[in-house]
Amino acid sequence: MKFNEKTINREEIYRGKIVNLYVDEVILCNKKKAKREIVEHSGAVAILPILDKDRIFLIKQFRKPIENELVELPAGKLEKGEEPEECAIRELEEEIGYIPGKLEKLTSIYTSPGFANEIIHIYLASDLKKTKIKRDDDEFMDILEVDIDEAIRMIEDGRIIDAKTIVGILFYLQKDNLNKLS
Amino acid sequence: MKFNEKTINREEIYRGKIVNLYVDEVILCNKKKAKREIVEHSGAVAILPILDKDRIFLIKQFRKPIENELVELPAGKLEKGEEPEECAIRELEEEIGYIPGKLEKLTSIYTSPGFANEIIHIYLASDLKKTKIKRDDDEFMDILEVDIDEAIRMIEDGRIIDAKTIVGILFYLQKDNLNKLS
Repeated sequence: MKFNEKTINREEIYRGKIVNLYVDEVILCNKKKAKREIVEHSGAVAILPILDKDRIFLIKQFRKPIENELVELPAGKLEKGEEPEECAIRELEEEIGYIPGKLEKLTSIYTSPGFANEIIHIYLASDLKKTKIKRDDDEFMDILEVDIDEAIRMIEDGRIIDAKTIVGILFYLQKDNLNKLS
Repeated sequence: MKFNEKTINREEIYRGKIVNLYVDEVILCNKKKAKREIVEHSGAVAILPILDKDRIFLIKQFRKPIENELVELPAGKLEKGEEPEECAIRELEEEIGYIPGKLEKLTSIYTSPGFANEIIHIYLASDLKKTKIKRDDDEFMDILEVDIDEAIRMIEDGRIIDAKTIVGILFYLQKDNLNKLS
């Protein structure tokens, strides 16, 4: 690593259910001091559930921070000690009521590295078997089943504007294109 | 809007330089009360600067929240009252020392809608004219100039794991493919 910022002091501002907030005092590359506001998050998974290679499931839910509904991949926070794959299988069943016969890692993304450490592990779930939706009693969402071509149009025209959802869909298409070439 | 969460109380936890933190008490769709931790951010822009249709500029910098370097699109926070296009032009010159002759909006993304309201407006910058880098004295970064094909490989093998950067590059490719078809 070439660049670095050494922490010389950490102030804990808040410990919450979803996030913790710290303000670190750091030493920069030019030896000056600076403050860094850091949101700590346990990490999450998102799942692209695919039926028959060209239909996918999305969910639509209200997101309080943006005061609006968003169309997203099924997703959820990692529980303490939980492996990402385990979390992906649990969240998929909870939110859309399917268990994946096959789960492939697509990529992981840092969502807001300027102020948060949140990482989202994104999986492709296929060979889906229907079970039963098991949502928490404070989760409200609609399930959408759309063709992958329609999902691309939704990304292009701004109906899908959630980062993890765009990455999951476009990464899968990119990978799929490569597989067809090779 | 079908789903909604009405705020009945807001507690201000922290007002900072980059983020503010609130805890809202809300009424859910089932009439129950819940708490929502909300990180407020002013929004940002990211720019995909392209030379000759197949070479792009990326930057590599240390990100304190993840204690590591990341390869990213040039990007920056919106200043008070600043329009996204203005911010894109300013940040591009500050970080890589180019002014775009042409600036096209690709899309906007919500990065962490579960706990933050951050939105990033992503632009394609082309017809680039060299000027001079004007970084803040606490900004340290390397500039990388890479072929777009290499950038795709970097996304596929996990050398690029920043959400806005993956969205910017793959969205551009998707759009470019469509243009070729039409």
